[in-house]
Amino acid sequence: MTRKHTFVGAYAHSDNKRQLSVCFGFLTIENGKITQKGSIEEFEELLSAGKFSEHIVINLSDSQLIIPGFIDCHIHAPQFPNIGLGLDRPLLEWLDKYTFPLEKKYSDTVFASKVYDQVVQRLLKNGTTTACYFGSLHLDGTLELVKSVLKYHQRAFVGKVSMNLQNDAGYYNSTEKELQDTEEFVQKVLDYKNELIQPVVTPRFAVSCDHQLLSGLAMIANKYGCSMQSHVCENLKEINYVLEINPRCKSYCEVYDKSKILHEKCIMAHAVHLTDEEIDLLSKKGVSVAHCPASNTRLKSGLCPVRKLLDNNIVVGLGTDVSGGDSATILDAVRRTMDVSTCLELQGADNYSLDWKEAFYLATLGGAKALNLDDKIGNFEVGKDFDALLIDAYAPGGPIDEYEYTVDENKEEHAVSLLQRFIYLGDDRNILQVYVKGKSVKTI
Amino acid sequence: MTRKHTFVGAYAHSDNKRQLSVCFGFLTIENGKITQKGSIEEFEELLSAGKFSEHIVINLSDSQLIIPGFIDCHIHAPQFPNIGLGLDRPLLEWLDKYTFPLEKKYSDTVFASKVYDQVVQRLLKNGTTTACYFGSLHLDGTLELVKSVLKYHQRAFVGKVSMNLQNDAGYYNSTEKELQDTEEFVQKVLDYKNELIQPVVTPRFAVSCDHQLLSGLAMIANKYGCSMQSHVCENLKEINYVLEINPRCKSYCEVYDKSKILHEKCIMAHAVHLTDEEIDLLSKKGVSVAHCPASNTRLKSGLCPVRKLLDNNIVVGLGTDVSGGDSATILDAVRRTMDVSTCLELQGADNYSLDWKEAFYLATLGGAKALNLDDKIGNFEVGKDFDALLIDAYAPGGPIDEYEYTVDENKEEHAVSLLQRFIYLGDDRNILQVYVKGKSVKTI
Ligand SMILES: [Zn+2]
Ligand SMILES: [Zn+2]
Repeated sequence: MTRKHTFVGAYAHSDNKRQLSVCFGFLTIENGKITQKGSIEEFEELLSAGKFSEHIVINLSDSQLIIPGFIDCHIHAPQFPNIGLGLDRPLLEWLDKYTFPLEKKYSDTVFASKVYDQVVQRLLKNGTTTACYFGSLHLDGTLELVKSVLKYHQRAFVGKVSMNLQNDAGYYNSTEKELQDTEEFVQKVLDYKNELIQPVVTPRFAVSCDHQLLSGLAMIANKYGCSMQSHVCENLKEINYVLEINPRCKSYCEVYDKSKILHEKCIMAHAVHLTDEEIDLLSKKGVSVAHCPASNTRLKSGLCPVRKLLDNNIVVGLGTDVSGGDSATILDAVRRTMDVSTCLELQGADNYSLDWKEAFYLATLGGAKALNLDDKIGNFEVGKDFDALLIDAYAPGGPIDEYEYTVDENKEEHAVSLLQRFIYLGDDRNILQVYVKGKSVKTI
Repeated sequence: MTRKHTFVGAYAHSDNKRQLSVCFGFLTIENGKITQKGSIEEFEELLSAGKFSEHIVINLSDSQLIIPGFIDCHIHAPQFPNIGLGLDRPLLEWLDKYTFPLEKKYSDTVFASKVYDQVVQRLLKNGTTTACYFGSLHLDGTLELVKSVLKYHQRAFVGKVSMNLQNDAGYYNSTEKELQDTEEFVQKVLDYKNELIQPVVTPRFAVSCDHQLLSGLAMIANKYGCSMQSHVCENLKEINYVLEINPRCKSYCEVYDKSKILHEKCIMAHAVHLTDEEIDLLSKKGVSVAHCPASNTRLKSGLCPVRKLLDNNIVVGLGTDVSGGDSATILDAVRRTMDVSTCLELQGADNYSLDWKEAFYLATLGGAKALNLDDKIGNFEVGKDFDALLIDAYAPGGPIDEYEYTVDENKEEHAVSLLQRFIYLGDDRNILQVYVKGKSVKTI
């Protein structure tokens, strides 16, 4: 978009207090950024004054609205060929039998490139404008993921996975090679000087990384000002194993803390079974959590008490965690976030469950905050980049039927109903356009 | 289908022990019934012998398989215009504010006819070959649902809802009118003499029906040999209220039992909070349960212990319970059945959770048993009607991507993977054809 574009109609986004705001008005986009917005009355005034004469004006229909792009805070790109398979096994067995053997194949850059092109296109189609990716162990293989992200103009963090502890699949490297490859990976990604893509230092988790590797990686992240990501407290067996191989640590989080990994530019996936001390620690250190309800349930890891994390000032975003998660769409993560939260409320384990508006916040502005991108994306504040989805709740051929009957409602209430239906029932067919930094990127 | 049709390729269905059986072979359909089946070797032998010369032979592709049609054991057809709305309210409030005002509109048969045509087409598109419907309070309005079912050739039970106790919406009738209208409804449906459609006597629940009405309805059902359906123990407030207005009964189920409603031709929706005595009672009486995981979670009713019901020899099928449930597809009910069951396992409340193969059983043969239709449908035994779905896991434009990498597998294992992916990730785009009694009925 080089010319100014102005969308006129309904849009919905969240504010910093997790409140949903639904507006009927206009949004002007210039060079990928939101430069102006206002009510429908202001639009009409400005229009009569000729202020939009050089704009391309896009009028939304009655069944359309604009929302922020979805942010997937935790996803394993190389695991896509296994999506929907092997989910009847517990975490550590699933890793050894299904996941590591597949991930090993990404030493083949041709294979990697093909898969990653498919992955990025699928995510964009599903409305994921920003993804925080785990790649594989391979430097060159993971650079193919970077190339796919650039090719299709997604916003992303990409991490070459690091592991130096033995496993049955023989899928690990020496500490030295890991540190060297990671630094080279970080440099190569930074060399693109493309603000849409950032490297993220990615120790897989404390099951596959020792203290030496973890602290070496923390130093690399610190040297280049990079973010870090890993997994924590996903599953009880995993926690026991980590404590077994780290006998001097009282908690899983302490293992990471001793390696200087826990800081404001760190996002941890899962965090299902944190102790109160660990919640305190993550909160104080400013570590974010990627909530992955699909894989937590599918792999029977547990139910993450998101309300408790939020109440303790931990920033939470959503992750699909493909292929431990069985769905590559954040819409599904939104629904399951509500499901899991309701189960916790029904158990009396959580005070009150997250509703669809809060889950929508987690999928958008929450994710942006978790990835420290909320100065750029997450909602439609003037000055932010336009990462957005054009939704049509009643898209022809889509999953939602339109009926003649509607509850009496004004324009804003009507837009809330459209969004609510999309959140509960919609899919990629309802996502007509996907914009990243103002550019339309949805491929068919 | 007047000519013989033979499908050659993979098909999957369940047996009476809830085991999944995946076959690579052929199925022959004649006048809507399965008349022959066998292995691929048998097919080739018979083919060489010219035995299929008069058949239309349909060869499935590598990404296709045939499964039994889905059976929705509990769904409210008139509530479709509210789908995806109002789900942040508890049951009794949701009924008064959202549901009853909408249902009242079905006194208008023109409105009813339009909505019901959309509903039946949507369900067929989603692969629901059999539905057990709640209509509205209206005799003529609910006959419109019968007409829509006949028009689009779905298999169904249709019930005119009965209520004689006051509510804020003024949505109820006198006992006399209820009994008269119900009997007339039953007679009119039976007059169609169409084996695809059956009347079902439908007291809404003990919140809206007194003993006089309940027992009167039980007599009508008995007189005409009809099935009955209702709701039971969905929500704690509902249970308390029922016990309050029935002070002589020790349990909700006892209210129904005293009215002679509990018998083998009765299906009860929800059954979330049954006492052990009630489980015993339903089991002894042969009452089936329609498990509705979506609405149970959305309306925060509770988690139904399906494993416990099955272990107590209660027959269970699945229901979408639109619009308390937010999804009109049994695929979603299958996924949520697994989710809820896993939550119960994680809580230690249920022994071990239902896996996808058992959930698939509940969606097909389990539902057929729950509706006493398992002599006719539910799996592919020779002699049963061909109610089936032709699935393509990698249908172009669909939600599942095909990747070059696959785990090594033989033809049967490959078909299991296709089915698994469809169950976890698929949607209506993967359902290429829908057959009811051998007739292709999917409308676009
Ligand atoms: Zn992960
Ligand atoms: Zn119901």
